[in-house]
Amino acid sequence: MSLSVGVYGGSGYAGSELVRLLSAHPKVGSLSVASRGYAGRAVTEVYPHLVYGGEYVLPERIDASGLDVAFVAYGHRESAETVRELLEAGAGLVVDLSADFRLPEVGMYEEWYGAHPAPELFGEAHYGLPEVFGAAQGRRIIANPGCYPTAALLALAPVVRRAGGISSVTINALSGVSGAGAKPAVKTHFVSANENANAYGVSDGETNHRHTPEIETMLRRVGECPAVTFVPHLIPATRGEFETITVEFEGEVPDAREVLGWYAEDYGGWRFVEARENVPQLAHVANTNRARLSAANDRRAGKLVLFAALDNLLKGASGAAVQNMNLALGYAEDLGLEWLA
Amino acid sequence: MSLSVGVYGGSGYAGSELVRLLSAHPKVGSLSVASRGYAGRAVTEVYPHLVYGGEYVLPERIDASGLDVAFVAYGHRESAETVRELLEAGAGLVVDLSADFRLPEVGMYEEWYGAHPAPELFGEAHYGLPEVFGAAQGRRIIANPGCYPTAALLALAPVVRRAGGISSVTINALSGVSGAGAKPAVKTHFVSANENANAYGVSDGETNHRHTPEIETMLRRVGECPAVTFVPHLIPATRGEFETITVEFEGEVPDAREVLGWYAEDYGGWRFVEARENVPQLAHVANTNRARLSAANDRRAGKLVLFAALDNLLKGASGAAVQNMNLALGYAEDLGLEWLA
Amino acid sequence: MSLSVGVYGGSGYAGSELVRLLSAHPKVGSLSVASRGYAGRAVTEVYPHLVYGGEYVLPERIDASGLDVAFVAYGHRESAETVRELLEAGAGLVVDLSADFRLPEVGMYEEWYGAHPAPELFGEAHYGLPEVFGAAQGRRIIANPGCYPTAALLALAPVVRRAGGISSVTINALSGVSGAGAKPAVKTHFVSANENANAYGVSDGETNHRHTPEIETMLRRVGECPAVTFVPHLIPATRGEFETITVEFEGEVPDAREVLGWYAEDYGGWRFVEARENVPQLAHVANTNRARLSAANDRRAGKLVLFAALDNLLKGASGAAVQNMNLALGYAEDLGLEWLA
Amino acid sequence: MSLSVGVYGGSGYAGSELVRLLSAHPKVGSLSVASRGYAGRAVTEVYPHLVYGGEYVLPERIDASGLDVAFVAYGHRESAETVRELLEAGAGLVVDLSADFRLPEVGMYEEWYGAHPAPELFGEAHYGLPEVFGAAQGRRIIANPGCYPTAALLALAPVVRRAGGISSVTINALSGVSGAGAKPAVKTHFVSANENANAYGVSDGETNHRHTPEIETMLRRVGECPAVTFVPHLIPATRGEFETITVEFEGEVPDAREVLGWYAEDYGGWRFVEARENVPQLAHVANTNRARLSAANDRRAGKLVLFAALDNLLKGASGAAVQNMNLALGYAEDLGLEWLA
Repeated sequence: MSLSVGVYGGSGYAGSELVRLLSAHPKVGSLSVASRGYAGRAVTEVYPHLVYGGEYVLPERIDASGLDVAFVAYGHRESAETVRELLEAGAGLVVDLSADFRLPEVGMYEEWYGAHPAPELFGEAHYGLPEVFGAAQGRRIIANPGCYPTAALLALAPVVRRAGGISSVTINALSGVSGAGAKPAVKTHFVSANENANAYGVSDGETNHRHTPEIETMLRRVGECPAVTFVPHLIPATRGEFETITVEFEGEVPDAREVLGWYAEDYGGWRFVEARENVPQLAHVANTNRARLSAANDRRAGKLVLFAALDNLLKGASGAAVQNMNLALGYAEDLGLEWLA
Repeated sequence: MSLSVGVYGGSGYAGSELVRLLSAHPKVGSLSVASRGYAGRAVTEVYPHLVYGGEYVLPERIDASGLDVAFVAYGHRESAETVRELLEAGAGLVVDLSADFRLPEVGMYEEWYGAHPAPELFGEAHYGLPEVFGAAQGRRIIANPGCYPTAALLALAPVVRRAGGISSVTINALSGVSGAGAKPAVKTHFVSANENANAYGVSDGETNHRHTPEIETMLRRVGECPAVTFVPHLIPATRGEFETITVEFEGEVPDAREVLGWYAEDYGGWRFVEARENVPQLAHVANTNRARLSAANDRRAGKLVLFAALDNLLKGASGAAVQNMNLALGYAEDLGLEWLA
Repeated sequence: MSLSVGVYGGSGYAGSELVRLLSAHPKVGSLSVASRGYAGRAVTEVYPHLVYGGEYVLPERIDASGLDVAFVAYGHRESAETVRELLEAGAGLVVDLSADFRLPEVGMYEEWYGAHPAPELFGEAHYGLPEVFGAAQGRRIIANPGCYPTAALLALAPVVRRAGGISSVTINALSGVSGAGAKPAVKTHFVSANENANAYGVSDGETNHRHTPEIETMLRRVGECPAVTFVPHLIPATRGEFETITVEFEGEVPDAREVLGWYAEDYGGWRFVEARENVPQLAHVANTNRARLSAANDRRAGKLVLFAALDNLLKGASGAAVQNMNLALGYAEDLGLEWLA
Repeated sequence: MSLSVGVYGGSGYAGSELVRLLSAHPKVGSLSVASRGYAGRAVTEVYPHLVYGGEYVLPERIDASGLDVAFVAYGHRESAETVRELLEAGAGLVVDLSADFRLPEVGMYEEWYGAHPAPELFGEAHYGLPEVFGAAQGRRIIANPGCYPTAALLALAPVVRRAGGISSVTINALSGVSGAGAKPAVKTHFVSANENANAYGVSDGETNHRHTPEIETMLRRVGECPAVTFVPHLIPATRGEFETITVEFEGEVPDAREVLGWYAEDYGGWRFVEARENVPQLAHVANTNRARLSAANDRRAGKLVLFAALDNLLKGASGAAVQNMNLALGYAEDLGLEWLA
């Protein structure tokens, strides 16, 4: 079988990586790309640093009819509209990389993002973190997880699933500058971002990054969990994401070695998630579809510390999206992704 | 008055910065530098990136007699021996940049560093974080604080001093690569550190960075405080340090605006510490002797989040050392440091 | 005497550095800044990485009347108009950082930049590279040199002045990303510029950077010189400029040691230009107002190779502008710049 | 057929990349690696930033008998000894990544490197730049070209082959820090190399990089060429190499468009070399086995300017080595390298 695949939003970093991965995928027969921002320009001119192993000109529009799979990489709200149009046009499967179908209830979505443009589709989406929630099993929409939630959920789900009495979760995340998006801005100018670092996702004296409710609600699907604190930081690297997660318990604190055992148990059958005794490094996972986990105890303070690293544009976005497509269609999860393992 | 000043350990990054600052200080009449590692080499050849505003050849040894002030920038244990020799040789004031005189009890020192070479001097040292603990007031030894503790204590002390019922403190710190020292190693090779980031200070499944007890014991001088969790990270920048500190309370959580008020109250009279509503950025403080603070609430999770940024080699080491000398000798705290304000 | 000084164009990198330098200058009594792009914003918010040692809000307009000295840091053509307005308003001295008054003839200007808005002022400008062309001596306009020409002329002028028969000059220049300007763009996005490098100043198959005629015509003021080849490159650093210049001769090639002697002769009395046997490094001059020079022979190919390094925003722009003001007003060249020496 | 392959010197950057490429190569049945420096350590611990897509522990020694192909990535002189041992042990093909068999005469080798340990093998080596000199055709030794010569020869050979009267060649090269080797040193410390750049390959006032004679002698195999000037520079990037080459002629200067036509003619049938009108960028070729070329005229100065970019560790070392093996054994040149194209 040869798939007809479309990418909507090919000019952002995630879309650009998607096109790179899909154009080398053995099951993709025809690939169409829609990009408004950079239509007509060669992808290597627009994103020299991110794209290699291929060269293509970004088109503006594509025909939705007859697509087996469509990937939507627009901003939130606009994505949901496009998803509806694609389903109406008969697309078999839509993988949405925006936040539009990640949250479990429309009310929660509206609190963080505003009115939802396609609330009737809310229930159809599968949250595409397969190592925690399995394959899509016939759903028409896959909500591709946010990059920060991917790392947080991979590290936390095995703990939340087994250990009771979690009283506090604090997530400190570091992200490369590609996480701030492709649109040129003062904060992403080389001169601003180089030799700099800062926490963000704070306004009016409140931490309020939109990935916070996504992390919480997905954790609560696997066990009991309090509200989590989430503070992201920008660091002067192009890609990659590193999370240090501190967990406190009402009762006994699990031993880090036991946690490593839980990781092995839960992720042993999966190709792209791996736990080790050593703290991971961002460079171990950059340019791969792998997530690496580790755990340590702070016995003096009585806390568990978890570490997770992944590439925000691959396992945190486009690599996971292709992995989700593979699983939904019954292929091996790493088909076309072997060289990123 | 014209001071005779010596620097012991001029070849590390802190020592190199010390020499730069002292050679431009208006009260320093004669400056001697001892460097074993790079004796005979021009400082700009050894540290091109760090040193500007001057040029000098690093000598190997200097004569201790007649020094008004000596700065010791050797590693721990060796520093304490040098401090003893300097005091015996008649040095009026010794500013020690190592960890040797920072902890309050010899027993605690031995637990983290091994046997102390000069335990009889332990009681003579003043912990040199003047914005929290004042000037040295006649002590012969100033223990210059660690870079991580400086940021943590500046952010936490006003809170610990006023707010009761602190139940948890989690410090996530980011440091530029100069914090890992000047000795060439695989981990500090440009190819290893560039496009990389990771948590460190973890071994055998335990968080165990030596700055942890320094932070805790100094906090307990100003109020009640539980054991703190401290996880440092290396990021691909040359200099600077950023800390995100999450504080939990048994009772009511102070409002971030109230905390900003406490900062203004405690640090209003000091030149080099400043709090603002906006989260600080590492680039705001790099190459300066300033520390910048901020605070936010996580109302959903019921926590207080504090932010602190400073330059690890200046306010976190050599700038603070000169500031400490200034205060101990009765000068303005920013004498010779005005251009770093 | 206390100067009333204005800066026009305070929101670019050069303007921002100018304000930093002037606000610490001992002779500047009142400083006004006009910035359209970032009016009303704190300079550290806009340029966190470049600005330290001060904090100020960028205003939009300033009153030109009564200014002793005005600095103009607008783009070309707009600068010339502002210079005319300022002179008409009675400004005593105008230092123009644009290209508008650098070239010796209006015709040459028009070939590279288009119609000149104030051709009647062309003859009034002094080309402000004092180490080669001396102080302004009563002229009302100082044309502050381009960053690339500054490095090229400092390295080449002593050779062109003495050695006859130069048959070829090839200048390869490296520049940090601040040289590409403050306006956010795809090419200066951190993700584009990091881990990247390329030659630029080429279009339609022709090298054509506008600094080329400036270099040539200024060299011809001191001696005979053929048309020069100039190829600039962007490298992933924030600031600094490095030039490698290959010179060929019809007759005998001067020895590198002899060239070092010429440098010592010509620049011995100047504070900010220094030649050494060792090849300079960009980090030796970044964040300083210094230029460093060196020379080598390629005996196999029969060529002379010159090296020059400076900070593009200081000695290549704002530092030189303040130095030019100092000299024009009879102050020491390094007044207010001592800490950048 | 399934190959038995050995890598000698697996702990350097080139060796580490070789292992990565060979472990994913479809014809490699058994792969052995010898590393002294890092024997027993996981490659991702030693080179986190360079190695992805695999994980292996570096062994110290391997058995040479029965190897179909051996790659030698030791330093010069030691490599030649290993090559002799391998051939004596019966290895079918040896690809040497050192400089030991690149030069055409033993005398020239001795002038730049000292006594040659295996002069009797000198004549057996094929210079492995296939796009210029074809496949190895039965030779037992392939001398894998230096990274700088690869870029220079790809850009220059088509010109030297066709255009007479070349009077001057000046090569300015930029290299990422991985080009300076894996051994930790002050100059490759992150703090030294970050925000820095400089020319190197100069000593005692002479340009004298050892790649100079390699470039010259190989160019003279395809046409007439004067002694070349070669000045390499280090820039703050991990990998990649960019060369700007200025060529002067006694007679008419070829038009850049004509040169692009020559490139298309010579390289049209090769997968990994490509010429374009736009100046290449280092990020276009980093992490690929591609070389990109371009050309421009400097009509004012009457010169031709050539541009070449490649990844120093792939097309400039290990990627080319695997490509050379492929061609020597009759496989497609890009076998196992498709994802780097």
